[in-house]
Amino acid sequence: MLEGILQVYPLPTREVDSPYADIELPSTGSHDSSLPYVIINMVTSVDGRVTETGKASGLGSTLDRRTMRTLRSKADAVMIGAGTLRAERLSLALDDSGLPQPLAVIVTETGEMPLESNLASYGQQTVLVIAPIQAAEQLRQRASVLAVQTSPSGAMDLGEALRSLKATYGVNGLLVEGGPSLNHSLISQNLADELFLTISPKLLGGLKSEALTMLEGNLLPAETRPAPDLLSVYLAGSELFLRYSLF
Amino acid sequence: MLEGILQVYPLPTREVDSPYADIELPSTGSHDSSLPYVIINMVTSVDGRVTETGKASGLGSTLDRRTMRTLRSKADAVMIGAGTLRAERLSLALDDSGLPQPLAVIVTETGEMPLESNLASYGQQTVLVIAPIQAAEQLRQRASVLAVQTSPSGAMDLGEALRSLKATYGVNGLLVEGGPSLNHSLISQNLADELFLTISPKLLGGLKSEALTMLEGNLLPAETRPAPDLLSVYLAGSELFLRYSLF
Repeated sequence: MLEGILQVYPLPTREVDSPYADIELPSTGSHDSSLPYVIINMVTSVDGRVTETGKASGLGSTLDRRTMRTLRSKADAVMIGAGTLRAERLSLALDDSGLPQPLAVIVTETGEMPLESNLASYGQQTVLVIAPIQAAEQLRQRASVLAVQTSPSGAMDLGEALRSLKATYGVNGLLVEGGPSLNHSLISQNLADELFLTISPKLLGGLKSEALTMLEGNLLPAETRPAPDLLSVYLAGSELFLRYSLF
Repeated sequence: MLEGILQVYPLPTREVDSPYADIELPSTGSHDSSLPYVIINMVTSVDGRVTETGKASGLGSTLDRRTMRTLRSKADAVMIGAGTLRAERLSLALDDSGLPQPLAVIVTETGEMPLESNLASYGQQTVLVIAPIQAAEQLRQRASVLAVQTSPSGAMDLGEALRSLKATYGVNGLLVEGGPSLNHSLISQNLADELFLTISPKLLGGLKSEALTMLEGNLLPAETRPAPDLLSVYLAGSELFLRYSLF
């Protein structure tokens, strides 16, 4: 078993205190300057599962949770889907309450969202909810709301939402922490610039009807889906930290 | 983009011609000397899918397929589940027909198995079918058959089958190439010693009802599931070759 944390790629190999501590985000210009630079951070088991008994917490190590906070410290806003918030109580803030906190952004298609009970950082950081126009009004007493158009099929225009995040809320760097449906929406619309993926040394199993992977949604067409380009590999014990560019 | 193939872990980093070309299998003694040393080799996308439109072929690169053959050359037998054979036409042999060929082992619970049409190496290598006693008789005209007991729920006793593979057929090193149900059966019964996992730089998506991951079956209980220990990491372009010990 390896001691310490190693950057094994790119070369030369070096010991580090923490993955990603010294990276700059956005690392390159966004492919579309009207959009924030969007990075997705997820932890999966070796068999590609992102939840254990329905919850993401507990899958990664202490180091993975520290790495998540390192990435948060480099973002103007941290975004999750409302399903992730419904699944468990979580914080979208930095641990050090003395630091400037990122904007917490929750995306909901229905407005069903246990903000007060499940967002542990409610009250400590500004919360913005992205919701369809028809669900927006009822949410305004609980948080700032960014109301967006929906397509005839009910899907929100996330591109429009991201452009507003940048233009109105000054979000240049956006960190997305799942869940799988939100990841899929962003990736299928080519709105995500990078993927930070921790592979936790676990084999979870689970019937396919109940086990979530990182992306939940239709098969991505081969012609338009992103081609991940591996940027770096860190290793701590048997846990792997991978960073891919999606453009 | 990286040129060539690098072993980035364990250190020191070095260029290689092919992952795993110089490893010895079994790398350690089996944890149970009555069993063959069992390695599983799979390729997944970054989002943990093992099939694209129902088929595993096409997911990995040319190098991945070459690596699969390297591992086959180190095994006495290559095993797949019948579902994998039903999904597509494939070979379980080495490309070089002048070399000694591994025993091809197909595991079936039902006996439904398109051997003649889908096993491209049928006739070039000895084929052994592992089947429940009640399905064995009808298969004997088409291949050698190893008949095994089933539990009251209909599950085959794979431990018994593996012991017979070693004792009767001289299989000391067994390579398993999926599918997800067979992998799950072996891992959930703690019959697999190592996992060789290629992560292809693709994001596939897919609804959870139709997308397979490496393990298909019940959630593995935290108390008894294996704790993967990362043994090595190779890198070729954006494709990763991971090797885990499961004991």
